[in-house]
Amino acid sequence: MNQILPAKFAVVNIGELVTLAGPARPRVGPEMRDLGTIRDAALIVENGRIVAAGSMADLRKSIGRKVTTVDAGERVVTPGFVDAHTHLVFAGNRAAEFEQRIGGATYQEIAVAGGGIQSTVALTRKATEDELLTQARLHRDWMLRGGTTTLEAKSGYGLNRETELRMLRVLDRLATEGPVRIVPTLLAAHTVPKEFATRRQEYLHSVTAELIPEVARLGLARHCDVFCDEHAFTVAESRAVFEAAAQHGLGLRIHAEQFRPGTGAALAAELGAATADHLEAVTEAALRQLLAAGVQPVLLPASVFCLGRDQYPPARTMIEMGLPVVIATDFNPGSSPAPSMPFVMALSCIAMKMLPAEALTAATINAAWSLGLGDEVGSLETGKAADFVVHECADYRELAYFVAAPARPRVFIAGIEVTL
Amino acid sequence: MNQILPAKFAVVNIGELVTLAGPARPRVGPEMRDLGTIRDAALIVENGRIVAAGSMADLRKSIGRKVTTVDAGERVVTPGFVDAHTHLVFAGNRAAEFEQRIGGATYQEIAVAGGGIQSTVALTRKATEDELLTQARLHRDWMLRGGTTTLEAKSGYGLNRETELRMLRVLDRLATEGPVRIVPTLLAAHTVPKEFATRRQEYLHSVTAELIPEVARLGLARHCDVFCDEHAFTVAESRAVFEAAAQHGLGLRIHAEQFRPGTGAALAAELGAATADHLEAVTEAALRQLLAAGVQPVLLPASVFCLGRDQYPPARTMIEMGLPVVIATDFNPGSSPAPSMPFVMALSCIAMKMLPAEALTAATINAAWSLGLGDEVGSLETGKAADFVVHECADYRELAYFVAAPARPRVFIAGIEVTL
Repeated sequence: MNQILPAKFAVVNIGELVTLAGPARPRVGPEMRDLGTIRDAALIVENGRIVAAGSMADLRKSIGRKVTTVDAGERVVTPGFVDAHTHLVFAGNRAAEFEQRIGGATYQEIAVAGGGIQSTVALTRKATEDELLTQARLHRDWMLRGGTTTLEAKSGYGLNRETELRMLRVLDRLATEGPVRIVPTLLAAHTVPKEFATRRQEYLHSVTAELIPEVARLGLARHCDVFCDEHAFTVAESRAVFEAAAQHGLGLRIHAEQFRPGTGAALAAELGAATADHLEAVTEAALRQLLAAGVQPVLLPASVFCLGRDQYPPARTMIEMGLPVVIATDFNPGSSPAPSMPFVMALSCIAMKMLPAEALTAATINAAWSLGLGDEVGSLETGKAADFVVHECADYRELAYFVAAPARPRVFIAGIEVTL
Repeated sequence: MNQILPAKFAVVNIGELVTLAGPARPRVGPEMRDLGTIRDAALIVENGRIVAAGSMADLRKSIGRKVTTVDAGERVVTPGFVDAHTHLVFAGNRAAEFEQRIGGATYQEIAVAGGGIQSTVALTRKATEDELLTQARLHRDWMLRGGTTTLEAKSGYGLNRETELRMLRVLDRLATEGPVRIVPTLLAAHTVPKEFATRRQEYLHSVTAELIPEVARLGLARHCDVFCDEHAFTVAESRAVFEAAAQHGLGLRIHAEQFRPGTGAALAAELGAATADHLEAVTEAALRQLLAAGVQPVLLPASVFCLGRDQYPPARTMIEMGLPVVIATDFNPGSSPAPSMPFVMALSCIAMKMLPAEALTAATINAAWSLGLGDEVGSLETGKAADFVVHECADYRELAYFVAAPARPRVFIAGIEVTL
C-alpha cells in the first residue's frame, strides 16, 4: 500500500543513496563509474523536488521531528530510470511471429510474408485512440513497476497522417495523465508503408512537407527519428527528413548502423543529432565522428538478445573513447518486447561488459541528457524532480546481478509514490 | 488486493485455460506442444482442489448463481510453475564477484582466490537459522511473484553436518509456513569444503556414513544431489554418495556434464536417477542412456546466460529423441542469480529454440513428474491441487515473448490467492 505523503517529507534510513550528482552534462569515461553514493543517507523532498540529499548525520537536524518520514529500510535508493528509446504505442503483439522465428523463420522472411512492422501497422491503423491508450497503459505500467519514471516513445506504426497523429495524441494523453514522464518522438520514417512501396519519394514528401510541419505546429513531438537501414531509408532519404525536422525545431534521433556500417552515424554527426541509436555494426571511424559532434550513442541490447543475435554494440570501446553512452529498452512488439530497465542493465553487463555502475549511469543521468532533460531528472540533486526508486536490495550492483528478478521496488515521481 | 475466497469458488471468463491435461506421466516429443488448452473457459475449485476445468458453456450450470466467482478478465490461466532446481537458501550474495567477472576475471580465477562457492559457504556457516530464513523468504517471494508455486531447493552451502542440517531446517520451516510448496534435496556433495581439501575421502565418508543416514532419518530431504564435475566430485565419488542415498530411500538428482562430457549422465542412467541436471556438454550417446533409463533432463539456461557463456544444452535434440525435458532456474548466488520462471521460458525459447508450448510443459507438468509430484501438481485436472496463475496476457506465448516483463500475475496455491 502506498504511503500518503505531505508536500514535505524525508526518506530516511537509506543504506546506499545513489545520487549520480556531478557536472551538468552527460558522464563520460571513468565518470560513468562515479555514482556519487552516500551511505546511511537521507533525502528531503518538498513540493515534488529534492531539497537535500546527504548523510543521515548531516540531515538529522534539518529533518527534525515534525517532518513525515519514509523508512527505506537500509535499501538502495537510485534516481528513477530514464528509458530513452521505446516504441510504447502499438496494437496487438507479435507473439505468433516470435514462435515462428524460434521455429526457424528469419525476421526478413516474416517481413516478406506480410509480418514484421507492416502487421503492427495494419493493426494500429485499425485501433481507436482509446484502444491504443489502454494497451499502452499496461505496458507503461510494466515499465513503471521496473522503476522507469521517464520514457521516450515514438510514433511509427501509423505511417499515414491520421494514425501517426493518433499515436502522438495517445502519448500526449499518457503524458497528461501521468505519472510517468513521456517524451514524444515522430517516427513517420520508420519504414515505407505498403501502399507507397513503389512511390517512396511521394511518401517521404508527405512526411517532410506535411506531417513534420503539422506535428511541430501542434507540439506533439519533441524529436524526429528515422530508421536508416538497407530495409528502411537511405542516408540521403534520412537527410531530407532530418532537414525538415530541424527546420521545424525538432531534435534529431536516428536508428543507425543496426545491421550494416555506413547507415546513419556520419549523418547524425554532421547534423548534430541528439542521439544515434542501435550501432551494433558501427565502425570506430564513425564513433570518432559521433564523439567529435557530441552525439550520444543509445545502445539497445535487448533487441539483439530477443532476436537471438550475438552482435552487440561495442559498449566498452565507446566508453573508453569517451562517448556518453545511454542504454534503453527499445521496447517494441517485433525485435524487443522487453520493457524492463533492470533487465537491460543486466544484459548490458553480461553481454556488453559494462560495469554495473556504468550501466546505471547510462540508464539514468546520461539518458536524461540525451532527452534534453538533464537539468530536471536522472540524478538526485537539490532542485531536481523527486523521481526516485527504493529498490529491494542493499547494493546497487544487485539490480543487474539478480537477473529478471520479479522485485517490487517502491517508485516515486515528483515526490508522489506511484507504485502499482 | 487479494480476494477472500470461500472453500468453493469458480474462476470464470478465462480467455485461454492451459490445462496441460494428459497422460499420467511426463510429456515427450510432440506431446510437449499439446497444452490441453480450452478457450472461454472456467475452473471450479473446492477445498483447495480442482473439481472441474472446462468451457464456460459446459460449466455454467455447475457454477450456478450461488458460487463465488473470480473474473479472469479473458486472460490466460496456467498451472503454477514448478521450479525443479534451485539453491534457494544461502547467506549474502555475490554481486561483487559478478562485477569482477564483467571486469574480466574468470569464474575459476575467482574460485581460486577464495570466492565462488566457498565464499557463500563461509557466510552461510556464520548465519543463524533465522537469518537464512529471512533471506530465503525474500527470494521465495520473488519466485512466487513470477508464478512459481512449487520449488525444489538444495542444501550445499554448509558442507558440514551442522550447517547442512540448518539449511534443511530452513527449508522445512518454509515448507510448513507455506504458501509455496518446497521439495528439499541434500547436496552435501556440492564441493569439497576447504578444511577437507587434502582429505576428500574423509569428507565423503562423513557424508555417506553420517549425514545421509541422519537426514533420511529426520525426513529432511526427499532427494540427494551430487555435483559431478572436474572441479567437484568424480564419477566414482558420486557413485559412492548415490549408493548411500539410495540405501536410505532418497531419490537421486545429479549436476552432470555441465562443462565436460563424461561427468555423470551415464551414472544417472545406471542408478536410475530421477534427473540429470545441466547437460550443456552432454553427448548424444549419453542422452540415449538417459532415455533408456527414464532419467529426466533438467535444463538450466539461466546459468549459461548469467555466466556469459554460449554453450546451451541441446534441448531440440533431446525433445526430438523423446526425452521428457524439464527447465528450471538453478537460482543460486554464483552462476544463476535469476529467480524467474517466465524468464527461463524466454531464454529456453530464444537460446535453445524450444517452442513456447514446449517451454511451458517443461516448466510445469514435466517438472512436477521429475519431483515425484506429477499426480499432485503441474496440470489443471480434476482432483489435483488448485495451484494456478492468472497471467497479465491473453496468449500463453506472451509469457516467453514479453521478456522479463515486470508483470503482476495473480497466483493461487491450494485454492488460496497468495499474490504478494
